[in-house]
Amino acid sequence: VPDRADPMFSTEEMSTIFSAESHVRAMLAFESALARAEARAGIIPERAAEAIAEKCAVELFDVAALQQDAGMAGTPAAPLVKRLTDLVEEDARGFVHWGATSQDVIDTAMALQARDGLDALARDLMAIGAICAALAERHARTPMAGRTLLQHAVPTSFGLKAAHWLALSTRQLTRVQQRREGLLLQLGGAAGTLAALGDQGIRVAELLAEELELTLPELPWHTDRDYVAELASVLGMTCGAMAKLAQDVALLMQTEVGEVAEGIPEGAGGSSAMPQKRNPVRATWTIASARLAFGVVAVLFSGMVQEHERGVGGWQAEWSALPDLFRFTGSAVRHARKLVETLEVDPERMRANLELGGGQIMAEALMMALAPRLGRNEAFRVATDATRRAATERRDLLEVAAEDHRVGEVLSPDDLRAALDPGSYLGSAEAFVRRAVDRFRAFVESDAPTTWRS
Amino acid sequence: VPDRADPMFSTEEMSTIFSAESHVRAMLAFESALARAEARAGIIPERAAEAIAEKCAVELFDVAALQQDAGMAGTPAAPLVKRLTDLVEEDARGFVHWGATSQDVIDTAMALQARDGLDALARDLMAIGAICAALAERHARTPMAGRTLLQHAVPTSFGLKAAHWLALSTRQLTRVQQRREGLLLQLGGAAGTLAALGDQGIRVAELLAEELELTLPELPWHTDRDYVAELASVLGMTCGAMAKLAQDVALLMQTEVGEVAEGIPEGAGGSSAMPQKRNPVRATWTIASARLAFGVVAVLFSGMVQEHERGVGGWQAEWSALPDLFRFTGSAVRHARKLVETLEVDPERMRANLELGGGQIMAEALMMALAPRLGRNEAFRVATDATRRAATERRDLLEVAAEDHRVGEVLSPDDLRAALDPGSYLGSAEAFVRRAVDRFRAFVESDAPTTWRS
Amino acid sequence: VPDRADPMFSTEEMSTIFSAESHVRAMLAFESALARAEARAGIIPERAAEAIAEKCAVELFDVAALQQDAGMAGTPAAPLVKRLTDLVEEDARGFVHWGATSQDVIDTAMALQARDGLDALARDLMAIGAICAALAERHARTPMAGRTLLQHAVPTSFGLKAAHWLALSTRQLTRVQQRREGLLLQLGGAAGTLAALGDQGIRVAELLAEELELTLPELPWHTDRDYVAELASVLGMTCGAMAKLAQDVALLMQTEVGEVAEGIPEGAGGSSAMPQKRNPVRATWTIASARLAFGVVAVLFSGMVQEHERGVGGWQAEWSALPDLFRFTGSAVRHARKLVETLEVDPERMRANLELGGGQIMAEALMMALAPRLGRNEAFRVATDATRRAATERRDLLEVAAEDHRVGEVLSPDDLRAALDPGSYLGSAEAFVRRAVDRFRAFVESDAPTTWRS
Amino acid sequence: VPDRADPMFSTEEMSTIFSAESHVRAMLAFESALARAEARAGIIPERAAEAIAEKCAVELFDVAALQQDAGMAGTPAAPLVKRLTDLVEEDARGFVHWGATSQDVIDTAMALQARDGLDALARDLMAIGAICAALAERHARTPMAGRTLLQHAVPTSFGLKAAHWLALSTRQLTRVQQRREGLLLQLGGAAGTLAALGDQGIRVAELLAEELELTLPELPWHTDRDYVAELASVLGMTCGAMAKLAQDVALLMQTEVGEVAEGIPEGAGGSSAMPQKRNPVRATWTIASARLAFGVVAVLFSGMVQEHERGVGGWQAEWSALPDLFRFTGSAVRHARKLVETLEVDPERMRANLELGGGQIMAEALMMALAPRLGRNEAFRVATDATRRAATERRDLLEVAAEDHRVGEVLSPDDLRAALDPGSYLGSAEAFVRRAVDRFRAFVESDAPTTWRS
Repeated sequence: VPDRADPMFSTEEMSTIFSAESHVRAMLAFESALARAEARAGIIPERAAEAIAEKCAVELFDVAALQQDAGMAGTPAAPLVKRLTDLVEEDARGFVHWGATSQDVIDTAMALQARDGLDALARDLMAIGAICAALAERHARTPMAGRTLLQHAVPTSFGLKAAHWLALSTRQLTRVQQRREGLLLQLGGAAGTLAALGDQGIRVAELLAEELELTLPELPWHTDRDYVAELASVLGMTCGAMAKLAQDVALLMQTEVGEVAEGIPEGAGGSSAMPQKRNPVRATWTIASARLAFGVVAVLFSGMVQEHERGVGGWQAEWSALPDLFRFTGSAVRHARKLVETLEVDPERMRANLELGGGQIMAEALMMALAPRLGRNEAFRVATDATRRAATERRDLLEVAAEDHRVGEVLSPDDLRAALDPGSYLGSAEAFVRRAVDRFRAFVESDAPTTWRS
Repeated sequence: VPDRADPMFSTEEMSTIFSAESHVRAMLAFESALARAEARAGIIPERAAEAIAEKCAVELFDVAALQQDAGMAGTPAAPLVKRLTDLVEEDARGFVHWGATSQDVIDTAMALQARDGLDALARDLMAIGAICAALAERHARTPMAGRTLLQHAVPTSFGLKAAHWLALSTRQLTRVQQRREGLLLQLGGAAGTLAALGDQGIRVAELLAEELELTLPELPWHTDRDYVAELASVLGMTCGAMAKLAQDVALLMQTEVGEVAEGIPEGAGGSSAMPQKRNPVRATWTIASARLAFGVVAVLFSGMVQEHERGVGGWQAEWSALPDLFRFTGSAVRHARKLVETLEVDPERMRANLELGGGQIMAEALMMALAPRLGRNEAFRVATDATRRAATERRDLLEVAAEDHRVGEVLSPDDLRAALDPGSYLGSAEAFVRRAVDRFRAFVESDAPTTWRS
Repeated sequence: VPDRADPMFSTEEMSTIFSAESHVRAMLAFESALARAEARAGIIPERAAEAIAEKCAVELFDVAALQQDAGMAGTPAAPLVKRLTDLVEEDARGFVHWGATSQDVIDTAMALQARDGLDALARDLMAIGAICAALAERHARTPMAGRTLLQHAVPTSFGLKAAHWLALSTRQLTRVQQRREGLLLQLGGAAGTLAALGDQGIRVAELLAEELELTLPELPWHTDRDYVAELASVLGMTCGAMAKLAQDVALLMQTEVGEVAEGIPEGAGGSSAMPQKRNPVRATWTIASARLAFGVVAVLFSGMVQEHERGVGGWQAEWSALPDLFRFTGSAVRHARKLVETLEVDPERMRANLELGGGQIMAEALMMALAPRLGRNEAFRVATDATRRAATERRDLLEVAAEDHRVGEVLSPDDLRAALDPGSYLGSAEAFVRRAVDRFRAFVESDAPTTWRS
Repeated sequence: VPDRADPMFSTEEMSTIFSAESHVRAMLAFESALARAEARAGIIPERAAEAIAEKCAVELFDVAALQQDAGMAGTPAAPLVKRLTDLVEEDARGFVHWGATSQDVIDTAMALQARDGLDALARDLMAIGAICAALAERHARTPMAGRTLLQHAVPTSFGLKAAHWLALSTRQLTRVQQRREGLLLQLGGAAGTLAALGDQGIRVAELLAEELELTLPELPWHTDRDYVAELASVLGMTCGAMAKLAQDVALLMQTEVGEVAEGIPEGAGGSSAMPQKRNPVRATWTIASARLAFGVVAVLFSGMVQEHERGVGGWQAEWSALPDLFRFTGSAVRHARKLVETLEVDPERMRANLELGGGQIMAEALMMALAPRLGRNEAFRVATDATRRAATERRDLLEVAAEDHRVGEVLSPDDLRAALDPGSYLGSAEAFVRRAVDRFRAFVESDAPTTWRS
């Protein structure tokens, strides 16, 4: 049975990473590694560590029963430790979970799951980046209307639009990588002093961090949740980036605009009564997932204010919020990936839309073409006159401008035509595309872990 | 397998009400009732309605497959209608979902599920109310420290504190009932005009509302989501009320305060290494659930801004958000119920805490006792002098006050002692308790549906 | 100097209602009325009440200095009471603020300001309603594309769209009125028992509620902030409604759509370099204000969880949040009002857009026209074939359908043309318009306070 | 007149940095630097640049009138450019704002203001860090109760608690510095192509970034608002950190706990009727400010989803949200600073509280002391028995443990006493303090800009 949120607001992959079973597995990884680290530090016998590790297998645990007990006990760690202790042979039993507290297990397990979750996000972001880079390069000089406040402003290129999606994705990759490297071990003991480990506390923490390949924090961070908020903010930004892309697509897919379209996925029925509809399905899921994510980000920020050495509510809310946030973000990224993978681009329609309004979108270009000869003030007056007249009389700007003797004196008909060609007024669009693509390529080649390139 | 959120952030009951299967069941209830209503209106044949109703059985549908298809199609309704159409005998097939749109099915199904969800909340709130009413009456005159900004202010009674919890619960019951009665049919057709029903649109809507016992809205409300925000706000307020109660308990349970305690539930292990701990487990779950809920409320408010005749993201986010909000609220209410059901109250500790600081909490009471004879200005000076001296010298206010001749001139030692007895300075506490209890009783007897009294 | 937020995110009117000076004035209204109520109850001398009332004049107070002191004292009430006490003649001095606590003054003052704030909102909503009612009636049968997921679905009418804006406004008026009538007195004394008033507490509260024309709550509500969340939710819903309207307009104003336009306000420069642009300025402010408001609503919901008898942070945050929420809501409503006041509607462009895509928007209508003769299944096949062919061949649906012999057999050319006329397929649009207008008129005539009709 | 939010939810300093006047000043700094950069690039005449720079003086502008016009025009930049153009001598007039768009001015101005805002935050954080470092060192071995879920768990030291506040502050300083260094120039022209600058767009951007000492982004970022969300998240984390500190203090100040106290500020009246109260005034403001900030953070995250080349609402909301967020964060940091500056610490009360419950807080310590001799399992049983008995009989754990022969066999009375001394069971507390202090010192000495050390 898929998670209730699949496949609309999660991916199967992310639901698996953050399933109750995976959480138990990660908690057992902590317990097993803790025993090893303590054996290495000479705190517990080697044999005890082995005996514990042997039972740290998720198959030996009834996940549903643990969840049920967690409701009673207040944490999922307490019943797990109890059960593990029961499983371990008697001599070693006393060394299970030695010196640790529930929060050590739970927070560290979450860090391990977060690592998998970030990797999953990164792989989708890498794919999105590669596709957007290709779109950006292919369409670097494909003119389309630049739209500000949803009004035609001046031309841009579809490649530059894709370059923005690319740049957003690259930055998210960078941030995801930083968060991944910053994932922290939690080990503080009952109240953050590691007192039960005597003077070996920090030594054990170092060894445990090594075992689990997590970063050793300066201090245990039981109620210092800036780390959690920082992780949440990166997930939230990722959602924001994906939703921006998706919203651009939904707007471009409007019946009246029609410049791009989502490919129709296999099995997508469309509207039975309205066969003409081409709905922005992927874009919609992306936006919906992002909206859900933003709500969770807010929970995790306000949850930073935790009481003394262990929170009353703020911490526990994370157990639902962080997995939800990963699920929603995973969904946003996956839907966005499928969106760009099948995106159909219609340069002709882009060109046609540029001509809506009789070329008025070239008003600024006209002014810039006139300015070197007429001076900027006069150029502005002439361009404005022509544009206003074109609008009022519903005629082409080119035609109207050609009638103005002030234009004719400084621009030949061919020059005028060239000046009013949207493709000639793209400024640094191509250079910007280059910068965005280069940055992505550099990340892929130099910074990205090899496991992200699958 | 329990839902991933059970039993920490949901109840089994609420997870069932908002399961994918229940959603399919509710959508089928819509389709079946729609056919009946259209047959009653003479729009489709009676026999077609019967044939459709016959197949509107959740057992005939593969819920997981429908969810999978929903991801492709953009809504869970489209694949359901397709599958239902396949199931229905050929003659009637053309009348399935006649004149309706996906959003009609989904929104109405959500309204049906919300009805069950509100009923579930109400039953827990009724139980909380009954317990708090009993606590309020029993402890109407049990003095405890009133605390403002976490400082002792003047005495209050534990009964008055419970009366506040009661009043919050009663008001939530009232609001839940209003929302329940206001649950709306959705029926607008493809773009909200019911055009496919010709001039019978409103008639069919009336009949359908009757069939499903939902309220007929003035207009279809496809993108008018104030109704959803209003429902969300009531759920959010319910969480806020429960979390306020829970936080009071968590604060009163502090080691240094110890005035109440959660009963230890069966199977709750407590801390293995720290057997002395008595954790506010129920309170913590309540607060955590409420925090999660607040995040979802925000999603539903910002989701009100939907595009034209159907939203792109805002609407779809509701499909995850509303069930989550019900789950979190169900969890908050259930945990709060268990909290009050097992609450242990320690009037002796309350009395002892009142004496912390040598009775300084009676400073205002001393002033009020002196004022009739000394005038308020002089009374204030005398009371302040005594309180400051008591604080500085770490002595009892009673003792210090007794030494002040200005006090002795107007109050006998017995009068003074009586004036400084916290139990004598409870003002309208008992009257307020009465008001809160009466209001709850009136609701139970006059307003609450009988089904809520289980 | 206008408030920093004017005129972009507030109105002058709302900034005045929630200025620091207005807050002081409202606190003084409380103190003065409290003294009168206590005199009526025989608790303080008549002459003292008069002496106090005489000094409750905002002109006698240095507002900036009070704010400064509030930072130190923790509340704006404490320094105000101190200053008022200094001003009052000696004999009456002791009776200032008798039996009340800072929160009583502040919460009641906020209720008084909220009353003015709600009235201000209501007046703008009334104006919006009147204009939308007129638009709805005028355009009840003006066909335009109904758009779902931003795709053409089936026709609707502009009047029905305006009727939705109207219905949203009417419901907000109803909610605003309910909140206005539910505004509550706060009077609980130091910890909510009214102990300093002996057995006269509830009597004084009744008289004070009468003096201030506020509702007497069942209990003091110092830390029962559901009332605040409820008020916040109504303001948030109002913003959501306005932003929905504004977003519809912004989308309709797109260069490619062009169905409505904001009137150009006096002094609005437009873009100097792009004279062709017609920006959705009012719509943008409305949406921006609503977005800001949603953030504040979330603060007020999470702020419900307050400690014991007075909150530590949650309550104080309201002092900024509630005024901000009123300001943002006032801005959203005012900008929306100006938006509809100057809205230009272009039925021709609506008609032209309906024809985009060669009438494919009439696919459902074609099916409905065929169904009575061909049966629904066959009608669906025929209509789908025709629509798909029209799309593929980029031809008119009318033309393609006319070529299909299955169509010709059951519909004459004239019937077919009529069936594919968008204006003929508006279903219950006009009836819905009527319902929305009637409901608004009924509210205006029966429910709205006369002061709202200015 | 102070800003309406001062001094409760802002500081005078931050209100000044984000005043309307400062925004105009920063916009003028952009216009002036743009002209210089364009002159350096040879795009406009040197003399024009000088003529423009000469008029870029805030004194020449009527700020209130500009705000008024901004309401009409849709941005504050358009009226400013218009007014500036009017002021500049005729020859140079045409070169004002050359090639830039409103968003370039506004976003860059916000970056300049943000730089000042971050500096202001950093100075307060530096002061907090220095004080917390001193507290941490002084009290590294001052035992106090470690509290989890508000229950006594095991001892910690007050120094370790202060070290956590310190570590939070140090990390915020690091993040503030990163954001400060990452503040970006905005320059994209009408739709992000810099078309009006021909092939000189990137060159001008480089020079302008140099002039303003801002970072040159890879691309213009008109609708790529991850940068804004990232800044917002750092401000939100700062608030969370401060509120955590403040909440710890508010909890420790409770009448029943009394371990620390805010110093009474000059002019703080306290409660007139309750002279015994010592309210957590600074802590309350800090928490309230943080709560307000969290709401704004959410606005800025959801505001990432902006339309095409310029947002409709999401961007404009930032103009209120970002200044508000800086104000609230400035307030949180300033109040927290004053809080720690005057914090009174009571080690005796800490010691006394450790003894509440008869030393049961030493249960884990007892077990650890017994374990080396008895084995962990037996040690656990013995310790648990003793603790339970101590709790039931309300006796001292030391006394009860001493009676148990299993204890007596392995621990002498002196050893037992030593083992149950809270000061002996602080584990790595002191080492953690050292790590936190070292990290802060390293930041101050190596990373912090000298201007932050005032």
